Amino acid sequence: MAEQTKFLLDESRLPEAWYNIMADLPAPPPPPLHPGTGQPIGPADLAPLFPMSLIMQEVSGERFIAIPEEVRAAYRLWRPTPLYRAHRLEQALDTPARIFYKYEGVSPAGSHKPNTAVPQAYYNKAEGVKRIATETGAGQWGSSIAFAAKLFDLECKVYMVRISYDQKPYRRAMMQTWGASVVASPSEDTQIGRKIRAEQPDSLGSLGIAISEAVEDAATRDDTKYALGSVLNHVLLHQTVIGLEAIDQLDMAGAYPDVVIGCTGGGSNFGGIALPFVREKLAGKNIRIIAVEPAACPTLTRGVYAYDFGDTGGLAPLMPMHTLGHNFMPAGIHSGGLRYHGMSPLVSHLYNLKLIEAQAHTQRACFEAGLQFAQTEGIIPAPEATHAIRATVDEALRCKEEGTARTILFNLSGHGHFDMAAWDSYLSGEMVDYELPDAEIQRALSDIALLPKVPVTA
Amino acid sequence: MAEQTKFLLDESRLPEAWYNIMADLPAPPPPPLHPGTGQPIGPADLAPLFPMSLIMQEVSGERFIAIPEEVRAAYRLWRPTPLYRAHRLEQALDTPARIFYKYEGVSPAGSHKPNTAVPQAYYNKAEGVKRIATETGAGQWGSSIAFAAKLFDLECKVYMVRISYDQKPYRRAMMQTWGASVVASPSEDTQIGRKIRAEQPDSLGSLGIAISEAVEDAATRDDTKYALGSVLNHVLLHQTVIGLEAIDQLDMAGAYPDVVIGCTGGGSNFGGIALPFVREKLAGKNIRIIAVEPAACPTLTRGVYAYDFGDTGGLAPLMPMHTLGHNFMPAGIHSGGLRYHGMSPLVSHLYNLKLIEAQAHTQRACFEAGLQFAQTEGIIPAPEATHAIRATVDEALRCKEEGTARTILFNLSGHGHFDMAAWDSYLSGEMVDYELPDAEIQRALSDIALLPKVPVTA
Repeated sequence: MAEQTKFLLDESRLPEAWYNIMADLPAPPPPPLHPGTGQPIGPADLAPLFPMSLIMQEVSGERFIAIPEEVRAAYRLWRPTPLYRAHRLEQALDTPARIFYKYEGVSPAGSHKPNTAVPQAYYNKAEGVKRIATETGAGQWGSSIAFAAKLFDLECKVYMVRISYDQKPYRRAMMQTWGASVVASPSEDTQIGRKIRAEQPDSLGSLGIAISEAVEDAATRDDTKYALGSVLNHVLLHQTVIGLEAIDQLDMAGAYPDVVIGCTGGGSNFGGIALPFVREKLAGKNIRIIAVEPAACPTLTRGVYAYDFGDTGGLAPLMPMHTLGHNFMPAGIHSGGLRYHGMSPLVSHLYNLKLIEAQAHTQRACFEAGLQFAQTEGIIPAPEATHAIRATVDEALRCKEEGTARTILFNLSGHGHFDMAAWDSYLSGEMVDYELPDAEIQRALSDIALLPKVPVTA
Repeated sequence: MAEQTKFLLDESRLPEAWYNIMADLPAPPPPPLHPGTGQPIGPADLAPLFPMSLIMQEVSGERFIAIPEEVRAAYRLWRPTPLYRAHRLEQALDTPARIFYKYEGVSPAGSHKPNTAVPQAYYNKAEGVKRIATETGAGQWGSSIAFAAKLFDLECKVYMVRISYDQKPYRRAMMQTWGASVVASPSEDTQIGRKIRAEQPDSLGSLGIAISEAVEDAATRDDTKYALGSVLNHVLLHQTVIGLEAIDQLDMAGAYPDVVIGCTGGGSNFGGIALPFVREKLAGKNIRIIAVEPAACPTLTRGVYAYDFGDTGGLAPLMPMHTLGHNFMPAGIHSGGLRYHGMSPLVSHLYNLKLIEAQAHTQRACFEAGLQFAQTEGIIPAPEATHAIRATVDEALRCKEEGTARTILFNLSGHGHFDMAAWDSYLSGEMVDYELPDAEIQRALSDIALLPKVPVTA
């Protein structure tokens, strides 16, 4: 009899509440500031963009926040997700380490993003909103919110970064299959979009520009709110179902992690797997928690901690975060979901508090580990997720060198079915590595020079 | 508390044996014939192409055939697959019917095909084979055998129909990610390929041609065997894990099907869900079992029952089956996996025995039902699977008209992540319907006129 491979939770064990780490932090992160006044923002400032229940979650200090039954019913379409023991990868690495991975690619959209798209759609619907506007880069978030909006009968408008719109027609088709209206950004549909198109008719767009367009759309229409797929506290809150389930599943497996690993772009899948374990670490458990970012967009490892805009247009609040500057344009790596100039304030704060570590890796090193994973475990990972795999393989090889049998848990945030062009590029040897030059960081940081400074707290 | 959505079996409940319907049939199907001599073929005739354990399964009369532990260990990477209750689809249709679906898209390759690719790779490995040659049309089978070959450390060569090779580079990349060597068919690598290329330099290829190439490759190399993803008895045997699991899962749900539905190309996913229920029907249960095929390739509903070659080149055995003739070239519908001129001898035989029914639908009608499914249940189905959804929706709507609450089970054989161009074509209104003209059938059948006739058995 082979050892168990998958640890499944029955639907009845779907978490009943999200975990809010704000209740357990030794010090809260600094407040976000109003982009116009530079003063701390209050709930009223966010009301044009978000429904009040999400704003209240953004600032809540409650340790657990109940998941509405309608959200749990939708989660049941794919959750609880499986926890795998990576027997075949362990064997290929000849490591004494025990490797587990939580697989979020089983959602209809193929990543962890629906974990927050679904509650966001639900709360908007509950407060009478008719229409959601959002942005998407590679398309993971756009397709997730399109799916969630359809479940709750909301209209959905997605501003998709032009280069992705052109290069990833299948992600666009996926959003349209779920009924969303998709437009290439910069578009003619917003003031900021028209302005940028007038100045740069050939603009390929960026996530920062697309955010500006979606925020403007929501702020200027009564029937519409904005939805963000990462960065904010309430997004990370919703993602904690990942880590909460993983704790139960590791328990089924009779295991406890020494190391927890996730890739980081805006911070949402990392927060999802990590925050429930940060809680355990704060309660005395000895766990290393590692955020893995691309060497081409190294916000934690090489950015500065500062107030910066979440978007390019300066419409979004100023957030205290590790950032490369809001005009930073990351190189065209295949991990579109990790190409964001900033980092979730919560993840940034945990990094400052030394509750988590960070690593950066180049994309070829990540695909190399991802290929070994695909050829042993079967699942072809999304480029973003290969960052977590790289760090996991490195850790497992260290275990082999040291002869220690640590238990590693990583989050496999999504599958690579919509990223096969990236795999093709890797396999054909065409993939290029990017490391950010120091000079580029200095230049990128100049755009935050005049913004308010973060008070020293820690 | 919402009603349960997913019915999951723990790994410990993975079937321990495949079900072989040959043990329970009132009469066996006629034997396949040697393509050269026209005489019934014996195990020795198949030995150049298949390992002996698969040949023995092809002709076995044992009711249950044990699944080797190595195969079960690999199955655990994704099996048991979930059974879903389609609450949201039922609600959208406002039907009293209870709709269940078995979801095979959770496999690494995204369809049911690995259910047989894995044991085929295992048995080849066990008998010392080093290399597998096969064909693929849309790419589902090729990617599944590439995945399985990698698990058992076999080389894998895939002859991919040229038009798919050009139009579906992501399926090709998927096979290459799992280490397979992929070539466009007709290729320069075989005699039959070179012959066809000499005659038709612009040939787009066909499944029949690609089969001929792979068979020639295997027959002419000592280290190589051939693998087929559908049609044959041993393939359908392996696929019965689908129906066996579904019986257990429906039991968990306190349900029993009145109607069982699957789409049919070569017959493997249909056989997988249907055969265990045919057994129950033979034992007295009142179940309707429906095979759904494309109107553009209607082998069961409009083909004839005759001996015909499984391939275009006439290298494969003559099989007793419903066929449109081995030179039949189906229209370019998006359900590449259903574009086969013949039908599994076992499924053909069940149809003759009136143990199963058949329906044919045009592709737009199928995508219409598939879209409603995607927008309610979330999963975007493969074009092939939309045929089963069309028949399911029709049946559920009949239940509504009649006011009867029948229980319907269908097999969702795969997801549509690699078919988004087809969804784009449907959503943009560009998709065209094909119905086969009668004259075309007459013409297609002329190529079997001189072949041996099937003895009248039933």
